[in-house]
Amino acid sequence: VAKRLEKFKTTIFTQMSSLAIKHNAINLGQGFPNFDGPDFVKDAAIEAIKAGKNQYARGYGVPDLNSAIASRFQKDTSLVVDPEKEVTVTSGCTEAIAATILGLVNPGDEVVLFAPFYDSYEAVLSMAGANIKCITLRPPDFAVPLEELKSVVSANTKAIMINTPHNPTGKMFTWEELEFIAKLCKENDVLVFTDEVYDKLSFEMEHISMASLPGMFNRTVTLNSLGKTFSLTGWKIGWAVAPPQLTWGVRQAHSFLTFATSTPMQFAAATALQTSDSYYEELKRDYLAKKAILVEGLEAVGFVVYPSSGTYFVVVDHTPFGFENDVAFCEHLIEEVGVVAIPTSVFYLNPEEGKNLVRFTFCKDEATLRGAVERMKQKL
Amino acid sequence: VAKRLEKFKTTIFTQMSSLAIKHNAINLGQGFPNFDGPDFVKDAAIEAIKAGKNQYARGYGVPDLNSAIASRFQKDTSLVVDPEKEVTVTSGCTEAIAATILGLVNPGDEVVLFAPFYDSYEAVLSMAGANIKCITLRPPDFAVPLEELKSVVSANTKAIMINTPHNPTGKMFTWEELEFIAKLCKENDVLVFTDEVYDKLSFEMEHISMASLPGMFNRTVTLNSLGKTFSLTGWKIGWAVAPPQLTWGVRQAHSFLTFATSTPMQFAAATALQTSDSYYEELKRDYLAKKAILVEGLEAVGFVVYPSSGTYFVVVDHTPFGFENDVAFCEHLIEEVGVVAIPTSVFYLNPEEGKNLVRFTFCKDEATLRGAVERMKQKL
Ligand SMILES: CSCCC(=O)C(=O)O
Ligand SMILES: CSCCC(=O)C(=O)O
Repeated sequence: VAKRLEKFKTTIFTQMSSLAIKHNAINLGQGFPNFDGPDFVKDAAIEAIKAGKNQYARGYGVPDLNSAIASRFQKDTSLVVDPEKEVTVTSGCTEAIAATILGLVNPGDEVVLFAPFYDSYEAVLSMAGANIKCITLRPPDFAVPLEELKSVVSANTKAIMINTPHNPTGKMFTWEELEFIAKLCKENDVLVFTDEVYDKLSFEMEHISMASLPGMFNRTVTLNSLGKTFSLTGWKIGWAVAPPQLTWGVRQAHSFLTFATSTPMQFAAATALQTSDSYYEELKRDYLAKKAILVEGLEAVGFVVYPSSGTYFVVVDHTPFGFENDVAFCEHLIEEVGVVAIPTSVFYLNPEEGKNLVRFTFCKDEATLRGAVERMKQKL
Repeated sequence: VAKRLEKFKTTIFTQMSSLAIKHNAINLGQGFPNFDGPDFVKDAAIEAIKAGKNQYARGYGVPDLNSAIASRFQKDTSLVVDPEKEVTVTSGCTEAIAATILGLVNPGDEVVLFAPFYDSYEAVLSMAGANIKCITLRPPDFAVPLEELKSVVSANTKAIMINTPHNPTGKMFTWEELEFIAKLCKENDVLVFTDEVYDKLSFEMEHISMASLPGMFNRTVTLNSLGKTFSLTGWKIGWAVAPPQLTWGVRQAHSFLTFATSTPMQFAAATALQTSDSYYEELKRDYLAKKAILVEGLEAVGFVVYPSSGTYFVVVDHTPFGFENDVAFCEHLIEEVGVVAIPTSVFYLNPEEGKNLVRFTFCKDEATLRGAVERMKQKL
């Protein structure tokens, strides 16, 4: 294995989902629904396959999907973007992250990350040879430590990566935090890479896109995907929206990482994104009910549950149960209780910082959530 | 754009396919069929979507597909491979190439390429910070210059990349060439990355997999895909077969480049690969007829047509028509004749070496091929 990837292990999601199958445990680990995506989107994919839309797509996306992404972006941010020059379709948001970093970051560039972070950020920054400056978001509210952030941003900083709503904590970046970051970026000529795949799963506050802050569009790459919002995580359709000069870098890397994304799925994604607002409202209503079941259940079991404003995750402190760390706790939870959660220490540069925290997802049907809570009540 | 990608332009395939649309030209450029893939594979995708196989696949592939790939590999090479430890499913062969290089090659490592080469090889080697040693294959037979190759391979060489049948020339590596390369690899502890996406389009000789040479499996990553063989280039299902220690590197990079590949398309790919040999025989028969139409047509038009043993491409010398170079010739061909071909100079480290050669594809229905020949007869 190349040195740039030596320190990384099998992703925790793969590890935990395999263990879930092995121990026949209820999987509240990896974030994929155990219910299906909407029929109108599945039907659109079937139509596209039948209609023979099965050859290479244009590298940066089929025109219908680029347009649908631009329209949704405009609806969400009030910014008009050019679907031909400012939108790139990728094979999931994971590829959008990789293409953004490999397309725009040079070896030795400093990039600021907030821990805990989705594991691919660190791995791809390592592939790019970037220098990571890591700022930890701490419970209970996982607020951005503004002065600490300021102290690491300088003329050497190439980019700040944010993720709002934030996986794993459910924290959402506030207007004040985003404004502070925006000011730092403008003063120091820094880019923002913002992963907003959970934007439609904002429960306790309104989602704010960094690109919508004054003067920020021109230095921001906004990353999103179809999977979370349409409960089709396996389709792997993602995208990056950015001004033309940044889009150029993203597209160059994308051209050589995957070249293009599944054509029929792109047509279906275009149909999905043209849905009415009522779809998103219903999705939110469903998830609020699921969230209530999980959060109340976890509290009743005896966890310290940290408030989650968005995403379909909640983070809890497991220390009331007396385990040494998050990994030991999760092992016990799988083997003795039959429930899978995700230990968070892998999402920190310094794993010690995550040792009290584990993540549960509520993207499961209500019976599954109740079943998991029941097992924990009885066996933990 | 990051420095590692500065020298690269929009891929030639994207450029030429856009020009084809703009000028309403017959597109014999980018290699995608203008006919559809087989119904039994499309139906399998539709079934998978309907059956709710729409959430994240296992990162390295759904078990059915890993098994189907292992079976086909065994059939083709007589080597038994472990589907769980030696097979990785990727988002097209382009991603398999990227994951192999980014997962196994360190900055400063020397990698040998044969020019002309598929453009992503050079770009991804540049992302990995590799040092490219380039050997040119020259017309008329594009044979490997054995002594020249030997002179660039040393203890500093990490890998040799081969592509057989070879895009763009249609050259197939002979047993003698592969044996010579194998010997060099064993003597100098060098890996082979072999792109065999056109293996089922071998017309004039039998395809030979490098992995099947004595002692080579353990140092070889074999790359392949669904798209060419099943006329579904837009589905973007590829794979890498390699011994466990090399698979580990490929999987680590893959985890962070795309994480996983479209789930329903993987189930369909598994069905496709279980097809009987008669499918491949019919495919070959069809392509031989198309090839005859194109080759005879190009000769009648006045090109020097170089013999192509495999792939759905032929390379010709355009100099009888008096243009300065391949790009000028292709511009004229699009604008004045209404036919798209691919200039080959982009596939060389030194573009001068490709200036006499252009590539045509015959993966089009017979009427389209005849129409293109007709236009060239009349207007060139
Ligand atoms: C690609 S799996 C990781 C993303 C996700 O859904 C999770 O955090 O569980
Ligand atoms: C991804 S397009 C390149 C592969 C191919 O089909 C070609 O060489 O035309």
